[in-house]
Amino acid sequence: MIAEAPTTAEAFHELIHSNYMYGLWELAGQMTDHPHPKAVAHIWPADLIQRVVKDSGEAVPVGEERRAMQLFNPGLEGRWATTNTLVAAVQVLLPGEVARAHRHTPTAIRFIMQGSGAYTKVDGERVYMEPGDLILTPSWGWHDHGNEGKDTVAWMDGLDVPLVLTLDAIFFQMYEQRQVPDSRPANASRQLHGHAALNPTWVKEKAGASPLLLYSWAQTHAALMGMRDEAGSPHDGVALEYTNPQTGRSALPSMGCWAQLIRPGERLKAHRHTGSAVYYVAQGNGVTVVDGKPLDWTKGSIFTLPAWALHEHANPSASEDAILFSINDFPTLQALGLYKEEAA
Amino acid sequence: MIAEAPTTAEAFHELIHSNYMYGLWELAGQMTDHPHPKAVAHIWPADLIQRVVKDSGEAVPVGEERRAMQLFNPGLEGRWATTNTLVAAVQVLLPGEVARAHRHTPTAIRFIMQGSGAYTKVDGERVYMEPGDLILTPSWGWHDHGNEGKDTVAWMDGLDVPLVLTLDAIFFQMYEQRQVPDSRPANASRQLHGHAALNPTWVKEKAGASPLLLYSWAQTHAALMGMRDEAGSPHDGVALEYTNPQTGRSALPSMGCWAQLIRPGERLKAHRHTGSAVYYVAQGNGVTVVDGKPLDWTKGSIFTLPAWALHEHANPSASEDAILFSINDFPTLQALGLYKEEAA
Amino acid sequence: MIAEAPTTAEAFHELIHSNYMYGLWELAGQMTDHPHPKAVAHIWPADLIQRVVKDSGEAVPVGEERRAMQLFNPGLEGRWATTNTLVAAVQVLLPGEVARAHRHTPTAIRFIMQGSGAYTKVDGERVYMEPGDLILTPSWGWHDHGNEGKDTVAWMDGLDVPLVLTLDAIFFQMYEQRQVPDSRPANASRQLHGHAALNPTWVKEKAGASPLLLYSWAQTHAALMGMRDEAGSPHDGVALEYTNPQTGRSALPSMGCWAQLIRPGERLKAHRHTGSAVYYVAQGNGVTVVDGKPLDWTKGSIFTLPAWALHEHANPSASEDAILFSINDFPTLQALGLYKEEAA
Amino acid sequence: MIAEAPTTAEAFHELIHSNYMYGLWELAGQMTDHPHPKAVAHIWPADLIQRVVKDSGEAVPVGEERRAMQLFNPGLEGRWATTNTLVAAVQVLLPGEVARAHRHTPTAIRFIMQGSGAYTKVDGERVYMEPGDLILTPSWGWHDHGNEGKDTVAWMDGLDVPLVLTLDAIFFQMYEQRQVPDSRPANASRQLHGHAALNPTWVKEKAGASPLLLYSWAQTHAALMGMRDEAGSPHDGVALEYTNPQTGRSALPSMGCWAQLIRPGERLKAHRHTGSAVYYVAQGNGVTVVDGKPLDWTKGSIFTLPAWALHEHANPSASEDAILFSINDFPTLQALGLYKEEAA
Repeated sequence: MIAEAPTTAEAFHELIHSNYMYGLWELAGQMTDHPHPKAVAHIWPADLIQRVVKDSGEAVPVGEERRAMQLFNPGLEGRWATTNTLVAAVQVLLPGEVARAHRHTPTAIRFIMQGSGAYTKVDGERVYMEPGDLILTPSWGWHDHGNEGKDTVAWMDGLDVPLVLTLDAIFFQMYEQRQVPDSRPANASRQLHGHAALNPTWVKEKAGASPLLLYSWAQTHAALMGMRDEAGSPHDGVALEYTNPQTGRSALPSMGCWAQLIRPGERLKAHRHTGSAVYYVAQGNGVTVVDGKPLDWTKGSIFTLPAWALHEHANPSASEDAILFSINDFPTLQALGLYKEEAA
Repeated sequence: MIAEAPTTAEAFHELIHSNYMYGLWELAGQMTDHPHPKAVAHIWPADLIQRVVKDSGEAVPVGEERRAMQLFNPGLEGRWATTNTLVAAVQVLLPGEVARAHRHTPTAIRFIMQGSGAYTKVDGERVYMEPGDLILTPSWGWHDHGNEGKDTVAWMDGLDVPLVLTLDAIFFQMYEQRQVPDSRPANASRQLHGHAALNPTWVKEKAGASPLLLYSWAQTHAALMGMRDEAGSPHDGVALEYTNPQTGRSALPSMGCWAQLIRPGERLKAHRHTGSAVYYVAQGNGVTVVDGKPLDWTKGSIFTLPAWALHEHANPSASEDAILFSINDFPTLQALGLYKEEAA
Repeated sequence: MIAEAPTTAEAFHELIHSNYMYGLWELAGQMTDHPHPKAVAHIWPADLIQRVVKDSGEAVPVGEERRAMQLFNPGLEGRWATTNTLVAAVQVLLPGEVARAHRHTPTAIRFIMQGSGAYTKVDGERVYMEPGDLILTPSWGWHDHGNEGKDTVAWMDGLDVPLVLTLDAIFFQMYEQRQVPDSRPANASRQLHGHAALNPTWVKEKAGASPLLLYSWAQTHAALMGMRDEAGSPHDGVALEYTNPQTGRSALPSMGCWAQLIRPGERLKAHRHTGSAVYYVAQGNGVTVVDGKPLDWTKGSIFTLPAWALHEHANPSASEDAILFSINDFPTLQALGLYKEEAA
Repeated sequence: MIAEAPTTAEAFHELIHSNYMYGLWELAGQMTDHPHPKAVAHIWPADLIQRVVKDSGEAVPVGEERRAMQLFNPGLEGRWATTNTLVAAVQVLLPGEVARAHRHTPTAIRFIMQGSGAYTKVDGERVYMEPGDLILTPSWGWHDHGNEGKDTVAWMDGLDVPLVLTLDAIFFQMYEQRQVPDSRPANASRQLHGHAALNPTWVKEKAGASPLLLYSWAQTHAALMGMRDEAGSPHDGVALEYTNPQTGRSALPSMGCWAQLIRPGERLKAHRHTGSAVYYVAQGNGVTVVDGKPLDWTKGSIFTLPAWALHEHANPSASEDAILFSINDFPTLQALGLYKEEAA
């Protein structure tokens, strides 16, 4: 009997590769010292967005779906994604149009950019949309959009589609009719849950998502103005999070929504953190420097911040406030113990 | 050797009693089939309270303490208690007076009955009081009261003194000076935490008690009006709980604060529950029947509800709303798994 | 018209007293600078308890209730209470006896002092009791006791009767038959929930009380031995809390259960805290000094600690461990934000 | 002046594409009616794994990294991933070897397949590994591995590398020396936190990850045997989750660990759910049918289950138990409100 010769490295690699196994030593580069997102910082300027809003109404129908122009991160190679976890889009609804009812597991928000008279109907409740309002569409809730007014209405959609796709948790369903019938008064969630620190005692059920679906601009703006003399955060200034009034936690389980005042002349300090974000400029002009690259923004711009990028916001105006609305994936990172932050 | 004789029942009882022991069989009556509170339902009518407010200003000084008339439950045999766990009082502050700073572990609230121009200062923040406002004084927070206006200002105090005494957890301390120096802007908590479902992101600390100290009547009234078309609870109608905006839970860990609309002609269904309450009639007239005994109330009355008493509220007016403010110990009962409720 | 004369202090006091109101200034002494419990530190020595166990079997029947000798705190003036919130008792069950089924809202524990072969049946599950075991009887669970063996079995009961009475939340019910029929295997909760940090995935419901009903002495002792080289707490030594395996929190919502090793020669540092306790000496001898008064204890003694009393434990033995089992009301104090602690 | 011609669809698409925008209508296929994972069900048979364990020791050194053969899902096109969120690997450590200390944000577990005498050192604590044990390496904890014995030791690694990469939250660091010096006794976490439902009262800090690092096979097996007469889940049988003893929640924030008994002759019912898993066969033989495809497994096999795949487990043996250990991403799905389950 002849002793078996020891396996050579070459034979061994052939063995494992042909059986769907790879040595950790072959993958060393993938465990990097810090995140190296493929996503890049990018800005879609306000005038581009204005033009897209206007032209889209002429060029494409609302059809069976939505007239929603998705913002593709230039670094993400054609993925349906604005950051690694979030997608933002510009959606346009012309007077008289209806975007038919469907539902999906990705969570959605709408931040209204222009126009009055439209609504999002969520599970049978019409939620009317005015510029600056934030509207929630929690995961798996039926929703359609309608424009009863005379204005072209446009808003920024924000969804966690890339995250839900990554987690293999996507579900989608068309409603059998064009719209879900009205089953609750318009803006009913606001009447029930929109009063500061006052909860209806007979509402017992608590879901992860906020039962409040409408956060008005009037209220958000008043809150920011009321805090304008606060120091706030050195990195984020006077930054508010939209919350679930039943729990005080983020309005949506996976996605955070923030509104942020940058005061005239204020230059915030640089920092970086895990978690990515998409910003919409609700008011004013300014600049955000991301890893040394300045993104100059004006009212109506949308820009994106990748994870772990060093960034700082500034409002160079001598007199005008700047207000940034943003969505982020911080609640996801925090739930998993992966949120990290460091000052420059 | 003689066998020891067995112990007799008599000798045994003598043995145990002389050693601070009693047989369970001697105590059988104390474990009752349901609660039999010593506290009774009682009402202090509005005109009595008005007279006490007026006369107190003439008859007694604010002194080193407070001009606060404590409501003693007739069933509780001279205990400092309006229910088994709560005490309510009528406090009066004349123009120019200051009630000096102290702190204590019992949690306190103030519900303003009349007059403008006074404040409660909590940990260095002046919280201005208008009729119908709710002001919190969390456990162990320094507080004093001052009246800078021209009105006699009166409010209902609510504290969990009997509960804290029972738990042997009372602590009390006088401040070294008459008042705590101002260290924050007036009504600062309102600017930071008083905006519906919007939390300042840079405030990281969360205590059990609400960081929001002022809940205005304007907002409470607007909330009740906004929900007037809701079914609400069959027993409590359109009943709101004042909450901690950071958690959505009761504003104070041991004590609940409610505001309750009873619509014209509405007669709520009877029920009973563990937990006691003290009500202040903020608006309107009506009747609450407690274990068969009607308590007729008018704006300004204070009445008390013992635990497990069957009770129902009604507003017989054809046109006027009735609004009840109340404090209760439900959060305590719930934390300990002892809250029970049943319909008539 | 004649001007009304101002009210005199005397007339005013007469007015308020006759209407169940008292001035805060009349009550000043009740808000003390720190707790002054009426309960006192007291010890029931082991030999007394032994004698009571023995004599009770001869002198009193188990009857329709229990042969349970309640420990009355000498300071509490005949209240059914060992501390302000807790009552402990010595319960004795002779061979062949059954203590009939009932239920009540006070939460109960049993800590077995002597004898084998008895069980507590909780909601149809027999939980067998060996010396040193801890058995839970959660609020409102049906329970009876039976002794199938040949030993006199004795245990310490611990209940939050005084707390539940104070909260007017007492409910009590006799079961229609002598015993609840068996509906689950003996010690079933142990098989399901008694494995360290392993939860059955198909059990979805979570109550406030632990689903694990039996904590064996073997396991408790092994845990203490396993930690004997840990520093532990300077005040409590190697002190373990029995927990709810579904939540990691106290096994019962209102009452804490602890087991505490004091090593040979160990003298712990003095401290005090809100919250009261009753101790049973499970092993060894030692001394606890409470507000300067030494309580010398031996295996089988029961002693009580009032709230805010300065106390320190010591085990003067050169070689033998001392182990204290205790019940306390810390979870109640903590839930209400009233737990305070300070070193001497 | 000439009226501007309306934009054509073609021009509009050119406009948006050149500016990193795409119409939702161009992406319709990506929002599928249910998840369509790229990952496939796949099995690495026990004899393959045995051969890889043996050959790897001859063919490749442990080097500066680990001798860890990563299992690549055939459907995931070369991604370092066994499912969309998890990666499993077979790691081998020969007598005398040390795998040097590093740390990373991906969370890791080890499930020991064979051999005695090795340890994983976590933050200075040696955790000794016996076959069937589960060892945790929480996110960002320093860890190295050493083999002090005479056996070849092999284990299955499980990490959430694909999830953390997707979230752009990867951090990695080499320790400055080969090993972290010992700073705690071996298996110290077990002494402190490994006793069923008993928590050390002086340990106040609670992280998201379990402080218990070692879950022994003896205990896991005893728990499964103790529950063998339980009905368990119709789909998963007697399935236990390893938990954090401080909270009763999953041992790790993002990753679940289960041990599952399938009794002789037991055929579980089919179901599907969001969330993916990797199974290691700790004992016995059986078959798991995934979307109609049978995976026949024997002790030592590793197989993978994609999200939303219909699957059922069976143990055809007349006499031998089968026990599956598995890791999954259910805690992540649940934290984000994305866990869904349905029976066949």
